[in-house]
Amino acid sequence: MRVARLDGMPALDLTASSADLTRAICDIPSVSDDERALADAVDEAVRALPHLEVHRDGDTIVARTMLGRAQRVVIAGHIDTVPINANLPVRELDEDGERMLWGRGTVDMKAGVAVQLKLAAELVAPRVDITWMWYDHEEVAAELNGLNRLAANRPELFAGDFAILGEPSNGQVEGGCNGNLRAIVRTTGVRSHSARAWIGDNAIHKAAPILDRLAAYAPQDVEVEGLVYREGLNAVRINGGIAGNVIPDLCEVEVNYRFAPSRSTDEAVAHVREVFAGFEIEVVDLAGGARPGLDAPLAQEFVAAVGAEPRPKYGWTDVARFSALGVPAVNYGPGDPSLAHHDDERVPVAQIQAVESGLRAWLSGA
Amino acid sequence: MRVARLDGMPALDLTASSADLTRAICDIPSVSDDERALADAVDEAVRALPHLEVHRDGDTIVARTMLGRAQRVVIAGHIDTVPINANLPVRELDEDGERMLWGRGTVDMKAGVAVQLKLAAELVAPRVDITWMWYDHEEVAAELNGLNRLAANRPELFAGDFAILGEPSNGQVEGGCNGNLRAIVRTTGVRSHSARAWIGDNAIHKAAPILDRLAAYAPQDVEVEGLVYREGLNAVRINGGIAGNVIPDLCEVEVNYRFAPSRSTDEAVAHVREVFAGFEIEVVDLAGGARPGLDAPLAQEFVAAVGAEPRPKYGWTDVARFSALGVPAVNYGPGDPSLAHHDDERVPVAQIQAVESGLRAWLSGA
Repeated sequence: MRVARLDGMPALDLTASSADLTRAICDIPSVSDDERALADAVDEAVRALPHLEVHRDGDTIVARTMLGRAQRVVIAGHIDTVPINANLPVRELDEDGERMLWGRGTVDMKAGVAVQLKLAAELVAPRVDITWMWYDHEEVAAELNGLNRLAANRPELFAGDFAILGEPSNGQVEGGCNGNLRAIVRTTGVRSHSARAWIGDNAIHKAAPILDRLAAYAPQDVEVEGLVYREGLNAVRINGGIAGNVIPDLCEVEVNYRFAPSRSTDEAVAHVREVFAGFEIEVVDLAGGARPGLDAPLAQEFVAAVGAEPRPKYGWTDVARFSALGVPAVNYGPGDPSLAHHDDERVPVAQIQAVESGLRAWLSGA
Repeated sequence: MRVARLDGMPALDLTASSADLTRAICDIPSVSDDERALADAVDEAVRALPHLEVHRDGDTIVARTMLGRAQRVVIAGHIDTVPINANLPVRELDEDGERMLWGRGTVDMKAGVAVQLKLAAELVAPRVDITWMWYDHEEVAAELNGLNRLAANRPELFAGDFAILGEPSNGQVEGGCNGNLRAIVRTTGVRSHSARAWIGDNAIHKAAPILDRLAAYAPQDVEVEGLVYREGLNAVRINGGIAGNVIPDLCEVEVNYRFAPSRSTDEAVAHVREVFAGFEIEVVDLAGGARPGLDAPLAQEFVAAVGAEPRPKYGWTDVARFSALGVPAVNYGPGDPSLAHHDDERVPVAQIQAVESGLRAWLSGA
């Protein structure tokens, strides 16, 4: 699908520095579901490059070399951001002598996308074939994710031996990701007027053991292929009661279990059922983790080339999507992941440059 | 304030049976804040009675005899109901051979109002002077209550030696009422992404001891002037969390303490602070109870005349308002209080008749 160019759309100069390119693409707002202007700008810029074959699906752009190399690497980044909160346009800051770019998207994850765009233009003859993917709707419900749609419409574009997601990882290589389960743990009772509480049966009081078990829960650290994944089991929401004078007949505790990629989704469900034995449990969201994938030969070369110490990724990212398709994947991008979604998100320019250099070194075989 | 009569407004026949009158006034819907039509009908009916002096304040009607008797009794009932839920018009049922009136308002408390209206018309020369009060906005926030407004605008109308509220009490005399306190017990923490829960501090987990203390709490039975008041301390609402992937920084448990009328409001607050020691507590609603008031000579005569065994009232009612004004007050009305607000509320016709007979016997000195 080709979308007509909007008049006055900013043109992207892919020969600019990765910092300037970060700034340029941050200043084209692209909150989830409003990525069109940025997708058009990326589309236009990469179609001007004769060494790339370009595909478009909605606001996802795929550009790939077709050099007939023995191996292919997929390098992907989402172009959407969480909502802007008076944190655009980008500002340049000096923080203890370090040059920073501040503003929505600088960390999650337009600095990573900028590096990818720059290298997509520059590397006309990399040592492996490369499939670049810039996609929409990552920050919202999984079923809207551009990669999800692309996997349904053009599964052949995911062919590859290794994948790198540019999600912020402080310029380190973060392997795999934890799995993610959300469940409702529910108590029920009998409603009555609170002036005659003994006629009712208080569902909130019955939730006491649920909170006790959560408060006493000792999360595990699980080693998977040499990386230690830190798990967690937490209440993320609790809700019960309908009025100030009614004994509640329902209390729901939403729990979130982040589990190491060595556990299957079935094992994760079983664990949660065991912890909350005796209570009604409804699993409402379940996504398996991804093993680090660092035993793949390309992954080992990559880690050696960028000179980084591999670490585990705690949050669920789209590496799990590649992992599920049989493509080992890691996260490697500029920016501190704990600043993602933060109104003060900001990225050191030196870290953008380091990721650029690391990727260039490996991809060009220099 | 006199409101113009609406054309087609149903006229009330106060010589009808109390059951027919119950049916007639239930079939004039009067959900709180929409009492105008019924207030107009009552106003018109009582203004036609030359033995009563009538006052109106908003949708509250006061009608009183001015016979110069040594004693005056206030007899009051609210004319509003909770929302209708496909339970009007009134239906007549046979339940195990007992004739019942079913529908919104039959219990809370139009059967009681019907008896009052009938006796107001009939008793032209009672043994005590009577101030009849039919008021609006009882089922909603206390500050909207018609008695509250009347006490501010026309405090002299509350003069009396004894008061009877027609709230449903199964045709028994229920003395006084429990006090009512609502408070928010609050925990706070630190928000973080749930993939990195160890950076945050989970406010919901910290609420575990609040629920533990509620679950373990043993409510007291307190004897006051010979009646036993059953207390209660309950969570009525709980709320915490903002999203499925965020460690919550706030959890609020709303607790409701129903306390015996022998405790002052200060003592009630102190008790709740003691139970939840160590937690932030905000009292959001506080109303003192009312002692039974059965030691007043008129009250003793009344109980003897209607032949009822006095019992404690658990729920807070407007008797506390009279009690606070120095007028001993009891509840006496047809209908099972546990059916109040129930979609299947229904009252035995025999109970309406019994209350009518009881009140008539005492007021006429027969």
